[in-house]
Amino acid sequence: MIKVGIVGGTGYTGVELLRLLTRHPQVELKAITSRKEAGMPVADMFPNLRGWLKLAFSTPEEAGLENCDVVFFATPNGVAMQQTRALLDAGVKVIDLAADFRIKDIAVWEQWYKMEHACPDLVAEAVYGLPEINRASIRGARLIANPGCYPTAVQLGFLPLLEAGAVDTSFLVADAKSGVSGGGRKPETHILFAEAADNFKAYAVGGHRHWPEIKQGLEIFAGKPVGFTFVPHLTPLIRGIHATLYAKVSADIDLQSLFEQRYADEAFVDVMPAGAHPETRSVRGANICRIAVHRPQGGDTVVVLSVIDNLVKGAAGQAVQNMNILFDLPEDTALADVGMLP
Amino acid sequence: MIKVGIVGGTGYTGVELLRLLTRHPQVELKAITSRKEAGMPVADMFPNLRGWLKLAFSTPEEAGLENCDVVFFATPNGVAMQQTRALLDAGVKVIDLAADFRIKDIAVWEQWYKMEHACPDLVAEAVYGLPEINRASIRGARLIANPGCYPTAVQLGFLPLLEAGAVDTSFLVADAKSGVSGGGRKPETHILFAEAADNFKAYAVGGHRHWPEIKQGLEIFAGKPVGFTFVPHLTPLIRGIHATLYAKVSADIDLQSLFEQRYADEAFVDVMPAGAHPETRSVRGANICRIAVHRPQGGDTVVVLSVIDNLVKGAAGQAVQNMNILFDLPEDTALADVGMLP
Amino acid sequence: MIKVGIVGGTGYTGVELLRLLTRHPQVELKAITSRKEAGMPVADMFPNLRGWLKLAFSTPEEAGLENCDVVFFATPNGVAMQQTRALLDAGVKVIDLAADFRIKDIAVWEQWYKMEHACPDLVAEAVYGLPEINRASIRGARLIANPGCYPTAVQLGFLPLLEAGAVDTSFLVADAKSGVSGGGRKPETHILFAEAADNFKAYAVGGHRHWPEIKQGLEIFAGKPVGFTFVPHLTPLIRGIHATLYAKVSADIDLQSLFEQRYADEAFVDVMPAGAHPETRSVRGANICRIAVHRPQGGDTVVVLSVIDNLVKGAAGQAVQNMNILFDLPEDTALADVGMLP
Amino acid sequence: MIKVGIVGGTGYTGVELLRLLTRHPQVELKAITSRKEAGMPVADMFPNLRGWLKLAFSTPEEAGLENCDVVFFATPNGVAMQQTRALLDAGVKVIDLAADFRIKDIAVWEQWYKMEHACPDLVAEAVYGLPEINRASIRGARLIANPGCYPTAVQLGFLPLLEAGAVDTSFLVADAKSGVSGGGRKPETHILFAEAADNFKAYAVGGHRHWPEIKQGLEIFAGKPVGFTFVPHLTPLIRGIHATLYAKVSADIDLQSLFEQRYADEAFVDVMPAGAHPETRSVRGANICRIAVHRPQGGDTVVVLSVIDNLVKGAAGQAVQNMNILFDLPEDTALADVGMLP
Repeated sequence: MIKVGIVGGTGYTGVELLRLLTRHPQVELKAITSRKEAGMPVADMFPNLRGWLKLAFSTPEEAGLENCDVVFFATPNGVAMQQTRALLDAGVKVIDLAADFRIKDIAVWEQWYKMEHACPDLVAEAVYGLPEINRASIRGARLIANPGCYPTAVQLGFLPLLEAGAVDTSFLVADAKSGVSGGGRKPETHILFAEAADNFKAYAVGGHRHWPEIKQGLEIFAGKPVGFTFVPHLTPLIRGIHATLYAKVSADIDLQSLFEQRYADEAFVDVMPAGAHPETRSVRGANICRIAVHRPQGGDTVVVLSVIDNLVKGAAGQAVQNMNILFDLPEDTALADVGMLP
Repeated sequence: MIKVGIVGGTGYTGVELLRLLTRHPQVELKAITSRKEAGMPVADMFPNLRGWLKLAFSTPEEAGLENCDVVFFATPNGVAMQQTRALLDAGVKVIDLAADFRIKDIAVWEQWYKMEHACPDLVAEAVYGLPEINRASIRGARLIANPGCYPTAVQLGFLPLLEAGAVDTSFLVADAKSGVSGGGRKPETHILFAEAADNFKAYAVGGHRHWPEIKQGLEIFAGKPVGFTFVPHLTPLIRGIHATLYAKVSADIDLQSLFEQRYADEAFVDVMPAGAHPETRSVRGANICRIAVHRPQGGDTVVVLSVIDNLVKGAAGQAVQNMNILFDLPEDTALADVGMLP
Repeated sequence: MIKVGIVGGTGYTGVELLRLLTRHPQVELKAITSRKEAGMPVADMFPNLRGWLKLAFSTPEEAGLENCDVVFFATPNGVAMQQTRALLDAGVKVIDLAADFRIKDIAVWEQWYKMEHACPDLVAEAVYGLPEINRASIRGARLIANPGCYPTAVQLGFLPLLEAGAVDTSFLVADAKSGVSGGGRKPETHILFAEAADNFKAYAVGGHRHWPEIKQGLEIFAGKPVGFTFVPHLTPLIRGIHATLYAKVSADIDLQSLFEQRYADEAFVDVMPAGAHPETRSVRGANICRIAVHRPQGGDTVVVLSVIDNLVKGAAGQAVQNMNILFDLPEDTALADVGMLP
Repeated sequence: MIKVGIVGGTGYTGVELLRLLTRHPQVELKAITSRKEAGMPVADMFPNLRGWLKLAFSTPEEAGLENCDVVFFATPNGVAMQQTRALLDAGVKVIDLAADFRIKDIAVWEQWYKMEHACPDLVAEAVYGLPEINRASIRGARLIANPGCYPTAVQLGFLPLLEAGAVDTSFLVADAKSGVSGGGRKPETHILFAEAADNFKAYAVGGHRHWPEIKQGLEIFAGKPVGFTFVPHLTPLIRGIHATLYAKVSADIDLQSLFEQRYADEAFVDVMPAGAHPETRSVRGANICRIAVHRPQGGDTVVVLSVIDNLVKGAAGQAVQNMNILFDLPEDTALADVGMLP
């Protein structure tokens, strides 16, 4: 059994990790920390877990994380980087669901996250946990930077095009729409029901933290700098991201085949038939990215539609997928949920 | 492996059966019928099943239902009663998710369902599939009448009170609220998004078909006629029923203990702690009924709160639970989903 | 022109007052206070008001409220009682949308609101602003206690029955469902979109602050003590209250006529035809209470369905209605919005 | 008083016209036709109108439309073109809210709407009713082609850029998101609540009927052919369109000033401050288009955000605005609703 600890279990990625891990046959949950809620049974806060989980929140001090085999950080940005070195030194593997280890260029990270990085050397070591690109490196890693939700949907959508050199890289556009759970569980006015329901808006058009993370990935795929515009929107969904990607086709390639071949061996990327429109609900609760590729009216614009559940393939599910790879388990262990439709 | 057929696979109870049964380790899905969609792969209609199910819809004629071990009817009322006898004669067990076999009094059934019953003798034989009451009879049955969604939530909420003779049976009130999927997948104006979203209304206050079904059960529990008022409401949820039950306490009983003891051995009924308020999302996708019991301000009114997912414990999940009992499997096989929260 | 001030303009009742008052032909908005947002143009916070309102938030000190003709308090409970006397002394009329002056029994108020009342004598003077009951007293009042949202819907639904002595007053039940805006605009976890969307729950079953307010009214209507149970629920609506009321009929009265006659002269109460089911969206944005009365299956239970928009007839609209009465204007001035459907 | 008739009053644009016109001080509603519902009081179908409108639906034959001053067609595509000539001959002005007269190139229209056009000469005469472009022509017109919802939001967003020659016209992208009411009130599976709620998807990526309508407008603004990609999405809003527009800046122009100057005299277009993100709810129920213009990170991509209520500025409100212009009334008569927020 793999001994698992979770730091920061009171947010949505925390409870989603618990939903998945309580049914993982090789996992023994040892500790879930919350300084504020220490002592409270987790299922009192999240009653969906009643009958599944007897554990209570504990303080970090009493959690015994150094005795775990792997620790997930489901914390705000800036927490994991303070605690990771000690865990690694104790032989514990670390999967960070926040952004601390995602961006290789420390200066860029510090500019966007507005704090000094505590351990640049670990950033260099960390493996970016997108299995469809980095499966081999993940296998031997000590430290995984679990990708952001938007970055997962957008990178998987652009990946085949950029690897194949099929599009003009100077003008890539990602118009992305997210459910409100992507904004976290900390109470803030703009994510109140009465603000976000029956409402739609763009936000952070001037610059969103996921922009440099995605750009870093796209440039690796393309092997050169790219011009990339990213506009996120808040949409009245609980869960789900829909990324609509636009680029100019620059090569005479059968795009449908390109996508199908690139993802032929990927269990968690579903290339839909030509003409399809993936719906976010088809992946609700499931660890899968569904993609469709279009060339409207046969013109030179390619439109890629990419959907994930931001809490599963966009966060907790991908983290469990990474754990499965780290521990040489079948990659889909505990990730066999069918999307909940309706 | 249990060979399973589903008649009528294009509605919400149909796709929910598929979500559950595709992951059932003892089930082999043999056929899903839809005369209208025959030939279409099921996953083309319900893309959440892509990668899980290769089956296509078939016509009833080519489905070979008589070779199945069990057939589920996820059909409109009045269909199962036409086809059940032939299946039973062929040795096939039948679980009807519609109302054909729920009401023992044929005259009452015919009055509320506005058609002549095709096989009154089978109504007499059918076992009402509420395991918490009828587990023993279900085990040996050939034909199960799977309870309605409202009736499941309301009966489980009133059951301990009536069995114990704890309330005045002349004035029982059930104020029930249902998500819109309870109205089915056939397009009708009042269940359009732009009609049902951001809207709340009662309906059928003058008389709803679930009223006689619930009343029949309550009178069995109480051992006498009851005065029962039932008001259903349509609420902008996809899934979920919340029943709020009112009665006058007539005996000096610790109600919390009463409920806890009655359901102590029931895996799919969760009696919450005193003072709790169950939320529908805590059972979203899960085969469980969560119940809380209150006596506001210590007065003589008891208020019971009972929540289920109408498509799971209120339909497909309970049907699978009944199948598990019929075939002597662990009752929770394929019913281990944690509620999806958020 | 009536000079109007608003204390506490950053919540939902505040912005709704502004939506109504900006179009009131006899109103001149002089000041909207918010200590925290002083200096910010109101339309920067509420962009629906762009082009309609040039005013900025001001501090209470600079607002010059004592020069207004009327001041609305759209503040948390406990604020108005601190400032009302000074305003009244300055000849300003006061309409409090919070609960400070609603409950006549000071001990009861202090028990439920958990603070000491600052001015019990003003409670005695205050007129409860339900025009359908107190229109005459409102006309000459200095201080109006604007009713709560649930109390408006529930009292208007029970009023004809109790005045006529038509029901057993020992067992009155109000099962009420509210949209999330009723919980205010202050960020709290349980009213986040990802918590409240696609979710339904009861709350405060053990005791809600509106219970004594409603009970006070019902006992005035009945002329005697009543047994009253009140269960509020949170439903995924932005706006809207649906109250479902239950009582035992004790007199042989034509209930439809009773309601129609009682409200024949009331512009803001709509008695719907027999058999109707009012929808919350039919009153969205409109200052009206729509009511239907049922006797299911002709039995002795009466079911009343009563819907309002909690922010309009349940708060800001009723406050403007009260202002219109106070200043001898046509009662529907600035209250002529048709409900927004869909 | 202007005598008004409405053909096809049972859909969402019909009821929205009624919501606006019942409060129009210069309008006398003479007839609302619905062959299917003839005889039914309109307020029985749309209870928000109870107390506002006594009219019943009538058959087209008995409606006396030829005696009206203006007739609105709120009908499916293809209806208005059959009846318009007779009305024009009788001296009645016609405003068609459907698409019959929007596209000047008859061959293009017939290709996209899949029917033969009944009166190409009237298409040539019809004025495209976008007042911000065609106000002068609207004033003297007999026949107005009221623009589509997407076309209104997208054209108003691109207009200043194209008129000024500020962008590369070879690669214009409109990523548009619509509320579900845009799909009409006719029951179809994909717009059921349980299908469209908590779900997000693109549709018609291969080609949507509004694409040629928008393209026609953009090419008029630009004075040359444009390369234009349009991807519509269905989002769980009742009302609202959010168009996100992308183009490459090709001229050194202050875009914020450009937009502010272009719309300085337009009452129904609100250019928001630099950095703003308009929300659909800020225009809910209001006849206004709010626009913000961005250049992310100061790069060469311009992003325009344009929001409308699809039923108001995108349909019925714009139709009333056109009627006001036609009859020389103040353009904002009956269009003074503040957006309903929350």
